[in-house]
Amino acid sequence: MGLDPFFWFMDLAGVFVFGISGAIAAERKAMDVYGSFTLAIVTALGGGMIRDVLLGRTPAAAFGDPLYLGIASLGGLSALVFSGQLSRLHFSLRYMDALGLGIFTVLGTTISLDQGISLPGAILLGILSGTGGGMLRDVLSQEVPLVLQKEIYAVAALVGAGLNGGLLALGVSVNVSAGVGAGVIFLLRILSLRFDWHLPRAGK
Amino acid sequence: MGLDPFFWFMDLAGVFVFGISGAIAAERKAMDVYGSFTLAIVTALGGGMIRDVLLGRTPAAAFGDPLYLGIASLGGLSALVFSGQLSRLHFSLRYMDALGLGIFTVLGTTISLDQGISLPGAILLGILSGTGGGMLRDVLSQEVPLVLQKEIYAVAALVGAGLNGGLLALGVSVNVSAGVGAGVIFLLRILSLRFDWHLPRAGK
Amino acid sequence: MGLDPFFWFMDLAGVFVFGISGAIAAERKAMDVYGSFTLAIVTALGGGMIRDVLLGRTPAAAFGDPLYLGIASLGGLSALVFSGQLSRLHFSLRYMDALGLGIFTVLGTTISLDQGISLPGAILLGILSGTGGGMLRDVLSQEVPLVLQKEIYAVAALVGAGLNGGLLALGVSVNVSAGVGAGVIFLLRILSLRFDWHLPRAGK
Repeated sequence: MGLDPFFWFMDLAGVFVFGISGAIAAERKAMDVYGSFTLAIVTALGGGMIRDVLLGRTPAAAFGDPLYLGIASLGGLSALVFSGQLSRLHFSLRYMDALGLGIFTVLGTTISLDQGISLPGAILLGILSGTGGGMLRDVLSQEVPLVLQKEIYAVAALVGAGLNGGLLALGVSVNVSAGVGAGVIFLLRILSLRFDWHLPRAGK
Repeated sequence: MGLDPFFWFMDLAGVFVFGISGAIAAERKAMDVYGSFTLAIVTALGGGMIRDVLLGRTPAAAFGDPLYLGIASLGGLSALVFSGQLSRLHFSLRYMDALGLGIFTVLGTTISLDQGISLPGAILLGILSGTGGGMLRDVLSQEVPLVLQKEIYAVAALVGAGLNGGLLALGVSVNVSAGVGAGVIFLLRILSLRFDWHLPRAGK
Repeated sequence: MGLDPFFWFMDLAGVFVFGISGAIAAERKAMDVYGSFTLAIVTALGGGMIRDVLLGRTPAAAFGDPLYLGIASLGGLSALVFSGQLSRLHFSLRYMDALGLGIFTVLGTTISLDQGISLPGAILLGILSGTGGGMLRDVLSQEVPLVLQKEIYAVAALVGAGLNGGLLALGVSVNVSAGVGAGVIFLLRILSLRFDWHLPRAGK
């Protein structure tokens, strides 16, 4: 893959925050320490595995480099150690999820474009890899997936992925367009939570 | 792949009806417009992605051709626009699901045979790609998957996939055998719903 | 793949016991006969498919050799025929699950090492293929996945996979290390059920 270390760093950052979000979700369900690590790892590595499998980049990156597993575990561990502080942050799970969503969406889009996928396909794959880890987390812990709840979620991923792709097409550097895309996704999610932005319901 | 445009058209038709079924499921759960689109797209493209990934046909077809995403969205949009009419059709979700099941089962079986998979393996893969999108839809919207409920479902897919494979082995043309297989699956599902056909329960 | 017939036999044994566990889970939910077979097959073949897809060994083994499908169905059939006897074994589902967990974890680890994956990656992939089929079973039948419940589960898989990898690194033959690893996983699970071993909860 022709992408530079910035993306490898972003991938690990996404793994870390999704790892935290998985462990927080486990704690809310009163799971044991190992259930927390399991959910942390599945959440952290799930989106990237979905991305790599759908693109045919196998074996998936998470198996090639032990750092992925280490960082996912570190995320889970951090959530356990700082669980008191995190629970005072009321929206902690959703903040971490918003960060991970931004990072993995942009990463999935950029890697797909790098592999010659068309822009709409790359945006779709970005959204799937951004939302995939969180969906696995929510399904395994028997919650309605965040992606299907009322505040804007996939639409944030769509806007960020489109922005990322559009800036690239305009000649903006790949690091800047990725950073802008991920930042916009994070902001849209946070704002939608704070101001209760949501789209109209179907059938109304 | 050596299959002709008829199968490409069938694939898109399956994507369209599964897209409708996803949006109907979302509406029943009072999801917002974007949740509806998300569920429409996951349902519509999930079965084909499972098929392509299990066969190693990556990147999955849905990423190569933007039409897939467009047609899935169109299915979701149709369900939103015509939701009044659809809700008067009492079984609308199950009708759309039955159509998609027929199409994707036959398509999965035929593509697998075309790639040199043995007949039992091709039938299994057909059933998985036919039922995969609907399973994702039901799991994400926290319903018991249709495939596991009492009316015949996977058995309909099995009969249709077997018929498709058997007719091919008898020298019937690939388009005819696919059409017959998909039609039989659709009919078996509809009849099982109308007449409440079901298999005996386990352990009785 | 350079592994000998012993592993092919283990794979089929794992498919058989996970097939039984899937049919038992279906029976508990009062599903019909075909729902039982469907859940048996998904449980039995799911872990191996996840393994093969993540490693890029496609088409997945389950589609190449009709025996997999036959053995999975035989497992489902056995559970239906002997359901009276099995229900007298109070922990039958969890015993079968423990056996399958041991076999598929060790198999996933060994195949991954054989394909040049690093030890931590191979252990992770072993755990995912060991737990994957059971997770699918539990999610589809709307139960909290066993892997996330309080008795040790993934930690048993981790210990067995690590033991398997460690013994291989010490020069022990691949069949012995696999047998020891699978046996330890099975024993740890059974003991944790019998003596209610569990790890501390998060946040306590």
